[in-house]
Amino acid sequence: MAKTKYVYAFGGGLAEGDGSMKELLGGKGAGLAEMTKIGLPVPAGFTITTEVCDLYYKAGRKWPAGLDEEMAKQLKQLEKNVGKKLGDPKDPLLVSVRSGAAISMPGMMETILNLGLTDASVEGLATKTGNRRFALDAYRRFIMMYGSTAMGIEREEFDKIFGEVKEAKTRKRLGVPNGNKVSDTDVNEAELADVIAGFKALYKKHIKKEFPQDPQEQLRGSIDAVFNSWMADKAVTFRKVEKIQGIRGTAVSVVQMVFGNKGDTSGTGVCFTRDPNNGVDEFYGDYLINAQGEDVVAGIRTPIKLSDFERKDPKAYKQLLDVRSRLEKHYKDMQDLEFTVEEGKLYMLQCRTGKRSPFAAFKIAVDMVNEKLITKEDAIMRIKTNDIEGIFYPMIDKSQPQKLKDAFLVQGIDAVPGAACGKVVFNAKVAEDWAAKGEKVILVRKETSPEDVGGMHAAQGILTATGGKTSHAAVVARGWGKSCIVGCEKLDISYEKKAFSVNGKTVKEGEYITIDSSAGNVYIGELKLVKPEPSEAYKTLMGWVDQIKTLKVRTNADTPYDAENARKLGAEGIGLCRTEHMFFDTEARILAIREMIVADDVEARKKALAKLLPFQTEDFRGIFKAMDGYPVTIRLIDPPLHEFVPHDEVGQKALAKAVGLSYEHVRQRVEQLHEQNPMLGHRGCRLTITYPEILDMQVTAIIKAACDMTKKGVKVAPEIMIPLTIDAKEFKILEQRTRSVADTVIKDAGVQLSYMVGTMIEVPRAALLADQIAETAEFFSCGTNDLTQMTMGISRDDAGKFLPDYVDEKKAGVFKADPFQSLDQEGVGMLIKMAIEKGRSTRKNLKVGICGEHGGDLNSVKFCHRVGMNYVSSSPYRVPVSRLAAAQAVIEDKKAAAKTKATAKAAGKSAARTVSVRKTSAVKKTGAAKPAEKKATRAVAAKKPATRKAK
Amino acid sequence: MAKTKYVYAFGGGLAEGDGSMKELLGGKGAGLAEMTKIGLPVPAGFTITTEVCDLYYKAGRKWPAGLDEEMAKQLKQLEKNVGKKLGDPKDPLLVSVRSGAAISMPGMMETILNLGLTDASVEGLATKTGNRRFALDAYRRFIMMYGSTAMGIEREEFDKIFGEVKEAKTRKRLGVPNGNKVSDTDVNEAELADVIAGFKALYKKHIKKEFPQDPQEQLRGSIDAVFNSWMADKAVTFRKVEKIQGIRGTAVSVVQMVFGNKGDTSGTGVCFTRDPNNGVDEFYGDYLINAQGEDVVAGIRTPIKLSDFERKDPKAYKQLLDVRSRLEKHYKDMQDLEFTVEEGKLYMLQCRTGKRSPFAAFKIAVDMVNEKLITKEDAIMRIKTNDIEGIFYPMIDKSQPQKLKDAFLVQGIDAVPGAACGKVVFNAKVAEDWAAKGEKVILVRKETSPEDVGGMHAAQGILTATGGKTSHAAVVARGWGKSCIVGCEKLDISYEKKAFSVNGKTVKEGEYITIDSSAGNVYIGELKLVKPEPSEAYKTLMGWVDQIKTLKVRTNADTPYDAENARKLGAEGIGLCRTEHMFFDTEARILAIREMIVADDVEARKKALAKLLPFQTEDFRGIFKAMDGYPVTIRLIDPPLHEFVPHDEVGQKALAKAVGLSYEHVRQRVEQLHEQNPMLGHRGCRLTITYPEILDMQVTAIIKAACDMTKKGVKVAPEIMIPLTIDAKEFKILEQRTRSVADTVIKDAGVQLSYMVGTMIEVPRAALLADQIAETAEFFSCGTNDLTQMTMGISRDDAGKFLPDYVDEKKAGVFKADPFQSLDQEGVGMLIKMAIEKGRSTRKNLKVGICGEHGGDLNSVKFCHRVGMNYVSSSPYRVPVSRLAAAQAVIEDKKAAAKTKATAKAAGKSAARTVSVRKTSAVKKTGAAKPAEKKATRAVAAKKPATRKAK
Repeated sequence: MAKTKYVYAFGGGLAEGDGSMKELLGGKGAGLAEMTKIGLPVPAGFTITTEVCDLYYKAGRKWPAGLDEEMAKQLKQLEKNVGKKLGDPKDPLLVSVRSGAAISMPGMMETILNLGLTDASVEGLATKTGNRRFALDAYRRFIMMYGSTAMGIEREEFDKIFGEVKEAKTRKRLGVPNGNKVSDTDVNEAELADVIAGFKALYKKHIKKEFPQDPQEQLRGSIDAVFNSWMADKAVTFRKVEKIQGIRGTAVSVVQMVFGNKGDTSGTGVCFTRDPNNGVDEFYGDYLINAQGEDVVAGIRTPIKLSDFERKDPKAYKQLLDVRSRLEKHYKDMQDLEFTVEEGKLYMLQCRTGKRSPFAAFKIAVDMVNEKLITKEDAIMRIKTNDIEGIFYPMIDKSQPQKLKDAFLVQGIDAVPGAACGKVVFNAKVAEDWAAKGEKVILVRKETSPEDVGGMHAAQGILTATGGKTSHAAVVARGWGKSCIVGCEKLDISYEKKAFSVNGKTVKEGEYITIDSSAGNVYIGELKLVKPEPSEAYKTLMGWVDQIKTLKVRTNADTPYDAENARKLGAEGIGLCRTEHMFFDTEARILAIREMIVADDVEARKKALAKLLPFQTEDFRGIFKAMDGYPVTIRLIDPPLHEFVPHDEVGQKALAKAVGLSYEHVRQRVEQLHEQNPMLGHRGCRLTITYPEILDMQVTAIIKAACDMTKKGVKVAPEIMIPLTIDAKEFKILEQRTRSVADTVIKDAGVQLSYMVGTMIEVPRAALLADQIAETAEFFSCGTNDLTQMTMGISRDDAGKFLPDYVDEKKAGVFKADPFQSLDQEGVGMLIKMAIEKGRSTRKNLKVGICGEHGGDLNSVKFCHRVGMNYVSSSPYRVPVSRLAAAQAVIEDKKAAAKTKATAKAAGKSAARTVSVRKTSAVKKTGAAKPAEKKATRAVAAKKPATRKAK
Repeated sequence: MAKTKYVYAFGGGLAEGDGSMKELLGGKGAGLAEMTKIGLPVPAGFTITTEVCDLYYKAGRKWPAGLDEEMAKQLKQLEKNVGKKLGDPKDPLLVSVRSGAAISMPGMMETILNLGLTDASVEGLATKTGNRRFALDAYRRFIMMYGSTAMGIEREEFDKIFGEVKEAKTRKRLGVPNGNKVSDTDVNEAELADVIAGFKALYKKHIKKEFPQDPQEQLRGSIDAVFNSWMADKAVTFRKVEKIQGIRGTAVSVVQMVFGNKGDTSGTGVCFTRDPNNGVDEFYGDYLINAQGEDVVAGIRTPIKLSDFERKDPKAYKQLLDVRSRLEKHYKDMQDLEFTVEEGKLYMLQCRTGKRSPFAAFKIAVDMVNEKLITKEDAIMRIKTNDIEGIFYPMIDKSQPQKLKDAFLVQGIDAVPGAACGKVVFNAKVAEDWAAKGEKVILVRKETSPEDVGGMHAAQGILTATGGKTSHAAVVARGWGKSCIVGCEKLDISYEKKAFSVNGKTVKEGEYITIDSSAGNVYIGELKLVKPEPSEAYKTLMGWVDQIKTLKVRTNADTPYDAENARKLGAEGIGLCRTEHMFFDTEARILAIREMIVADDVEARKKALAKLLPFQTEDFRGIFKAMDGYPVTIRLIDPPLHEFVPHDEVGQKALAKAVGLSYEHVRQRVEQLHEQNPMLGHRGCRLTITYPEILDMQVTAIIKAACDMTKKGVKVAPEIMIPLTIDAKEFKILEQRTRSVADTVIKDAGVQLSYMVGTMIEVPRAALLADQIAETAEFFSCGTNDLTQMTMGISRDDAGKFLPDYVDEKKAGVFKADPFQSLDQEGVGMLIKMAIEKGRSTRKNLKVGICGEHGGDLNSVKFCHRVGMNYVSSSPYRVPVSRLAAAQAVIEDKKAAAKTKATAKAAGKSAARTVSVRKTSAVKKTGAAKPAEKKATRAVAAKKPATRKAK
């Protein structure tokens, strides 16, 4: 067996890796290799694979055998290519050590620049470049980065030493520009030498050893630092928040240094090939003259725009423009680039698919289809859940201009479009705590750092005093489509006083502000936010989505209002209408249901139910009207009755008085309704087995409303759903009663009406015995909320005590995601597959859908498609996500099929005896390929009433 | 297609049916047919099938088409055979109309005698028999039976009329024997004529019509009455209590009347071919001279013994003895016979397998094997769960003779052996109510009736003032193995005063009595009861059981005491040792566990756990010692922590003080532990994921105890069980921790010790993903209590509100039995089968058992055998039941295999093209046929400690 290759070289137009090897080389390593291959100016170097990182951790943070030798060889080759040697006191090779995982984790992982500098080689660099200040500055940076990143000394301690030197100089020498402060570039050679001496002393104090003068030791320590950063708390948190799973670790790229800090013909920049905010095809980015890369990303100095760069250094800019055009054509997607100009010459340091705002995501995808760069399918595959969520993020209501004017506070840089409103907090932890209590907060920071991601995620929006559009705050917030304003330099923030001042006003922690991050405006107080109209690009792309998808997307809606709203968002019917929510709508309703519950006998119950009948009928009329032409699945009463009754003495006394019973009677009845495990108690269809008169009332209301609307010309398709079924006989009893009531109502109304009777599949036993249940049930709706609870034995209400540990990869890490957010495809999914296969074994055209929260989760919806469901149902605002997921599932199916075909063809060509056992992502489609939506309805004509009763 | 045959004739040595047709003809009909066939003296008649009863109900209590004609034909044939015609005024044919289902329901169903009597034909009968008194008595009985049974007039109203006549005569004519009272037989012709007139007037008053003078109408009405009695409340209740399911209804036999009430050479009796109480091969029964059958069963008059019968009528008795011997040889089982002697000639009216006491069941089965009447397998198949339960029923402690003598009250007839102690109640409903509250009661009645079965079942024992060993009370109680004394005629019971007086003493409702029903003695007060030693027959038969069964039977035991007791009852190891029960044992223990729960951090928890360690270790030592040579499965902590803490202020304050924390802290912690659905909450292995230090302590205690006992020469085989597992990774984390702790303890102890680590399968997901879990788990124990709750979505604690309706055949009737008592083989069983198949697909020798309540249920244990489990585990006193079930399962398997083989052979002979699709009772055995008990253990030698930790 061939030895595993740990290190891949690039440089001089050749590369051992390429752009497709992201998993092995990380995004950065793959990008460098690919750019090298297509002839772009890239400094030489080599990449240590992500596999090494994996082995490093498996061995207890130790290098795998053979890595030393392989790296030594590659380093020798690099020295040969560059013509310099690491540690050469006359002309040293300097390198950067950069991290890069398969999935970008901006700001999370470490980079060390200028490695190779020692007390001796710094002088060689000074002589060779003829720029001693530059050489000392590079050494200063290196000691600090190595000391903090590799050796764990607090960064602040270095900053303090450097700061004191700058401050001493400021005090000595007033009158320099920029508010009397001395900037980094103003510090001279002698002062830098002092700083270096201070840094080295600091290093020795902490590490009890001199700063290493052996570049090999520096290199080894830096590579370890990168590996270690993979498991740093902030990185683990980031992966958790971003739901990044299943990647092996970070790669490490060791790259020849090029210098943006060699004076005014040098500089460093970060740019996007198109505008990542609005998606417009315009070059977009920041450039910092006489700086190293870290200065841009950290947002310490505010950079200049690319247009200014063009003006200042047109030659270098032209090189960059050329690269932009070549890379977009090559990658067929918007790219995020990092580059350095060293004395007029451009070097590309990074190239990756650029993060973009949700708005831009649609715009770029649709534009690129129009530019024939990509197909409609490619465009659809590029859209993410966040992109769709972002489209529906609120904007500030601009209908009252004077009010806006009065509330205006200050303007910053519009980093991520949108708007947000909340209470000001200055600390990420506080943001998390307050948000956990249900508060809406805006996180206000001088600048953000990776330590802050938790609080940034919890906040409604982010506002920073420094940094540009590619600062940490901007990049992270954009990924989430979260409202963000950066570089609002007028803000005077005091973390100590928990307040900021601006333009003579002071805002304290806990006070409201509103940010319009599309404009960069900050307002004082709580302003009204409105939902934006979806963009043209959104509409175009969602049109393609609907053409491609085969799965129907319905919505969970309990009111005519929700139903109408969901129709606008693309819902093709209602998959779950919860009738019990209607009971809480008014005092009269809740009183009637309570009267029913505390009633002594059937007659009293019927009397109370008769009061509810007109309310329910009216609600259903509205819902049927809103869903004209589309099916409406209505679930009969589901929650345990104790959810409807008052649990306090005052409420119980009031109820007793209202219904004319004794308080003691009411109290006892309420007590009697108490359950140890209500989730597994007297609820769902068990209620209608015990109190069939509730079913009678609800079915009457549904069918009466359907008949009424039919008479008005509305096309209705009611689907009556029995919840919590566990047995075929149980279902049959209720189905027969339902039909008996419904057919009588239809006959009395004298109309033609089709309706269906089906069941929830939400208890494991129902899935196991689905074949028997499908003998009577015309449709299944998988209630994956309860099915998850019972299949996993986890009460969602109580899971907070232990489920976080189960999802946390640093704790138990049993599950990749919260099974209540993303379907447990392995366990719960197996039951769903069984239910569908068994159900269709007895009823070929059985209609199957899902109505749990999972119906609005991208991966879960794809699963529903793969297992052959007819529809999914999600909350109104999740409908577009579900539509997208449905289309992506079709495209993934096609790709998998093509791949299988190609593999089969290849296998056919190869030796006939070998049987290849493989796992493909294509899951066998179960059941009928074409939805049985239309055929599955059951017509009952008024003239031919069903005669199910005994003669 | 041939027309369904509704009516089967018998008579004159020929019969259309036979003894194998119990399902179609009912026990009585099949018995009459069989006895006719083998040449015994049986009156002629015909039987209407159970299928007709089924059709009758399906059609809404209407006769199926064609029944009229078929019956008319059969009646004509009967008239021809007998030579008499129904309603013939000169010499009428009289018939009885008798019920009889496939399973005997003594006293539940109706019988009508003397049908065919009218005002005219009664005179013919009088003339023909020359016994007018007899004819009038028969007519009197018929009117009463028809009026009450078929027409629903209260029986008491008839009794009142008859009683008044008797009383008037008593007043007139003092000095007759039997306490001055006039008995039925003392009533003369004239008085009987008055009674008949009174009965007819009563009939007319209620029915508004004359008593029917058309025998056809009488016949039709009587048959309907029998059908209707099938769904009478008392019959439905009986079937529920007896768990009788899946039979279609009752058959109706119309039989030529023979008369036991024709004077002193006539009589009627009920007998058993062997003693149904002790099983001794002695003829046993009651005989009533000059009476009809109903008089015996109702227990109104106290009958004479068979020995007296022999003395009084040796000729008739000899005929009976001959029948006895022929029937036992024919049926190869003890028979329960009903017969009538009409003027010296014996007629057999019924023959069925006799109910017997548990003691007798073993005795008869073993004797019959020794007599070579049956095989050992037959003997085993005859034993029922109740028989085994009965063997372990208590007896009175006879160690203090003086105390017994002082407490003695009165003696009655020893109807069912055993003993019982409880508070006296006089009403069946009161018995049920008190028992539901946990009271032990003795039901004391003048006599019992089918309406009383609920209360009889609820009572510890039954005591009646009248009736013999075949009275209702005796027959019913014997079936249940319930202590029962009958015919205690000295008791003066006042239902009104709720008291009875006897021998100058009065016992009121609520006062204790103790009954020794083996001796027939009644004692005042609460006497000590002791467990009997199992009989020799029991031991012999259980020895055969153990030879035959392949399934191991373990026990659920938490203490050394339970473990020792279970060993005596035949347990082959412990299948479930619940460690948490030990926590409640002493104040010190519960305080330590509470201290652990309210602890603030890991260190405090560890400190508290350290206090528990010696207690747990000591317990395990005792258990290992008791189970020397047998495996012991120990489950790690399972219940949610809130079950251990005090929930009231007083308790919480005491705890706070004891552990040195604030009350507020304790209160908050307790509050925090509250869960919405604790069944699906933070419990089982979720606790050890969160608090691994609990696992550390428990595993240390288990393995330390095992090492200690090993050193003392005890053979230990600990199996450590992780509860509530839902995922392979979750299990692996805990398994690794368990092994790491265990191996260290073993190494420190320096002994050789094998142990296993396995899991409960009690959450559906674990069953679904069993193949993955079995990669690490060495054994599965199916926790069917929780698995049933989650698979069916039913909380056992809350099921009382709706589950009774689900099991009640008159309500929803969804389930045949309570799924918490008898395993839901269809649903939950499917998951168990999956778990076993999947588990063994990755681990061939996976050991599988069950440890829910179902491990002690006959049918559930058979299921466990069929699906290939290695063992079942049940509570100590259920161990013999489980052993029996395991042996019966093997025998049933063999029978099914033989049947399949025979069917296959037959099918092979028939046309080759037809493929027969059949369901046989033989379920495919999954997995390895031979238990992998021995091979599955994993040896860890002290000298070779497992090195699982990272180096």
